[in-house]
Amino acid sequence: MSLLVVGSVAFDAIETPFGKTDKIVGGAATYIGLSASYFHKPVNLVAVVGGDFPQKDIDLLIHHGVNTAGLQIKKDEKTFFWSGRYHNDMNSRDTLVTELNVLGDFDPIIPEAYQNTEYLMLGNLSPQVQRTVIERLKNRPKLIVMDTMNFWMEIALDELKKTISMVDVLSINDEEARQLSGEYSLVKAAKKILAMGPKYLIVKKGEHGALLFNNEQVFFAPALPLEDVFDPTGAGDTFAGGFIGYIAQTRDISFANMKRAIIHGSAMASYCVEKFGTERLLNLTPDAIEDRVQDFVELVQFEIPLK
Amino acid sequence: MSLLVVGSVAFDAIETPFGKTDKIVGGAATYIGLSASYFHKPVNLVAVVGGDFPQKDIDLLIHHGVNTAGLQIKKDEKTFFWSGRYHNDMNSRDTLVTELNVLGDFDPIIPEAYQNTEYLMLGNLSPQVQRTVIERLKNRPKLIVMDTMNFWMEIALDELKKTISMVDVLSINDEEARQLSGEYSLVKAAKKILAMGPKYLIVKKGEHGALLFNNEQVFFAPALPLEDVFDPTGAGDTFAGGFIGYIAQTRDISFANMKRAIIHGSAMASYCVEKFGTERLLNLTPDAIEDRVQDFVELVQFEIPLK
Repeated sequence: MSLLVVGSVAFDAIETPFGKTDKIVGGAATYIGLSASYFHKPVNLVAVVGGDFPQKDIDLLIHHGVNTAGLQIKKDEKTFFWSGRYHNDMNSRDTLVTELNVLGDFDPIIPEAYQNTEYLMLGNLSPQVQRTVIERLKNRPKLIVMDTMNFWMEIALDELKKTISMVDVLSINDEEARQLSGEYSLVKAAKKILAMGPKYLIVKKGEHGALLFNNEQVFFAPALPLEDVFDPTGAGDTFAGGFIGYIAQTRDISFANMKRAIIHGSAMASYCVEKFGTERLLNLTPDAIEDRVQDFVELVQFEIPLK
Repeated sequence: MSLLVVGSVAFDAIETPFGKTDKIVGGAATYIGLSASYFHKPVNLVAVVGGDFPQKDIDLLIHHGVNTAGLQIKKDEKTFFWSGRYHNDMNSRDTLVTELNVLGDFDPIIPEAYQNTEYLMLGNLSPQVQRTVIERLKNRPKLIVMDTMNFWMEIALDELKKTISMVDVLSINDEEARQLSGEYSLVKAAKKILAMGPKYLIVKKGEHGALLFNNEQVFFAPALPLEDVFDPTGAGDTFAGGFIGYIAQTRDISFANMKRAIIHGSAMASYCVEKFGTERLLNLTPDAIEDRVQDFVELVQFEIPLK
């Protein structure tokens, strides 16, 4: 009944048409951990920060049920920093600053108490680091989910493919699926990517929803049409956190349950974008999440009468 | 129990990455009529062609249950001609040629036998011509559905708004919804457009599906993920034809039935793009359509257990 999340814990500075932030807490593992914590606790975290990372933000993670025993603090170094500016359409962004800092030589150490983890979520990191995590677990988890991005396809494709071959579920966006497969059609892309090893492929399409493929089936989950998207940062990670958290809660890795997990992940992501950074993820309630899931049910529900 | 379709009957020349056609039969009313004919016959057509339009193609329409009593043939003029080239992503295209020809001064004459129509589908035409059709019907149809495009927003916005205020359902794509409303968020766009008069708004998002809004509800229909899209020409009109045809067949204009109509329209559109032009719409069977509808059911179906 254990869940391990590996990824970045970072500072972000974000500009959107609605405003801009100073350095705020971000990072894939932060969003994944907070989101997953609404479904399953503890969330065992493996990550690294610098001496500049405030204790109060670590306390906040702990308060949400994140086990920080695996959070390395490098006193004399600086935390990973990313800064970006979203365009008016909120679907594209420019990266302004990327300072790897502590992430440059991250050695993911797995605390003994994290061994025998059942569910592993590999947030976006170098594929070498992601693979090291898998290799350092004495028993293979029941389900390994991996997120990645185009950056690694460009600079470390062979390493990336090696890691992809070791996971059960790969989660990427539509452009990345096209880039990784060389196919424009997402159906063809999915076939090629599933042939690389994963049993399942999640294709995230942002405001257009998400697709789940295995070799026999495909499921489509919409995104909730929203009045305002204030900040898309972390939406994909929040989605992944809701997905793995729901799986860990229900302990069911069937395709039918993965569909439910995707709906729950989508519900969490739809909350995430309503405020800047992680803000909206800090005070959700189970009722609010269930209400949002119900919105998804109503959004896609139709009855086709039998002929 | 009568259905009236007004729109262009045309020649198209199409280039896609998969090939190119000579002049083939196209036009909004052609696609709408063929698609609707699988659900309801006859499809009463009001349109205009030139003396260059082959009798065999008129016979083909008649064979599919299209009533061509309202098809004007201007012996000494030429049929509307459109030529376009699709880009590699199949989501964008360049118009190469537009020759209005007979469409330039189209006066839509309604045969007496078409009066008392219950369902009216206004395919893309100038908003003045669309409005003339409504005004020439002695009794207002139970449901008026209107398709239009960005072109009219640019050159005839006031006329367009006047016509929009007279219809029940407006069908446009996402970019057009943004252009017409000045809002990027489709939720906000829908509110503004519904305030212009229509009770329902359909927002077509191509490969990303379609949304149906009224003032209280929203429904999302996915597009079927396809291995290959050979030619997107006419997909939106085929969707509209399936929509209005299903409504005319079932005689039910409730929101719940409009959802089913959208799924049937989406199923028809997913067939349309499998071949060039109207080819795939010429030999479908009720079973094939039901199979495709079932694919949509499976694509979005999930079960959320009660807590």
